Amino acid sequence: MQAMQEDENAIRQLVSTWLSASKGGDTNKVLTLIAEDVVFLTPGQPPMRGKAAFAEAQSQLQDVDLNANSKIQEIKVFGEWAYIWTELSVVVTPRNGGEAIERRGHTLSILQKQAGVWFLFRDANMLAPVQQ
Amino acid sequence: MQAMQEDENAIRQLVSTWLSASKGGDTNKVLTLIAEDVVFLTPGQPPMRGKAAFAEAQSQLQDVDLNANSKIQEIKVFGEWAYIWTELSVVVTPRNGGEAIERRGHTLSILQKQAGVWFLFRDANMLAPVQQ
Repeated sequence: MQAMQEDENAIRQLVSTWLSASKGGDTNKVLTLIAEDVVFLTPGQPPMRGKAAFAEAQSQLQDVDLNANSKIQEIKVFGEWAYIWTELSVVVTPRNGGEAIERRGHTLSILQKQAGVWFLFRDANMLAPVQQ
Repeated sequence: MQAMQEDENAIRQLVSTWLSASKGGDTNKVLTLIAEDVVFLTPGQPPMRGKAAFAEAQSQLQDVDLNANSKIQEIKVFGEWAYIWTELSVVVTPRNGGEAIERRGHTLSILQKQAGVWFLFRDANMLAPVQQ
């Protein structure tokens, strides 16, 4: 049970690091949290496969400020694997003064522990635009 | 490895039963595939929690024909738990002659084995309307 608690804490730390690195525009830090063969799933888009594709997508966020907040709803650990369900809000604000856009919703993610370190492995993102 | 193959086969069977029961409007059959404390996550909606809430939602589908097809992208089994990623298309056709609506996209689901039987436990549904 103690090992499971340590894993849960490590996964909470992963989420926390992800949010603060995203807020700071630190893509390299975010990339350290992702498995090489990650897959990101979102509505209305084909799957985004692999760390390189994610890095490419992140590079298009250079001209925006990003502020994300998450509430962890559930974490379950199964040995070297885990899933996490979060409620997430992401506000994207263009630096040129354009209007901020908030997307909000839930995520369900699969995490994998590799050599003692947890990585994001599969990510289901169900965020939808918030009607202002 | 043989046990894992049997689990994978059981999970493929669950998906197949789900699709055929949905097509036949057999809600009671679908309900046998769902954990009591299931949670369904979809974009732009609050979580739907519990088997009773799902049954209530299904009862609103009495006047439509439903045709769903899925391609299983990945199954991973971790003892009594598993996840499955599918590509899913659902066509809803009103029986009164209204226009059919197709939604298509990906799902990521957590399954739990209880007393030797697999049940849907968490479901992330990223289907989006297909532009005709």
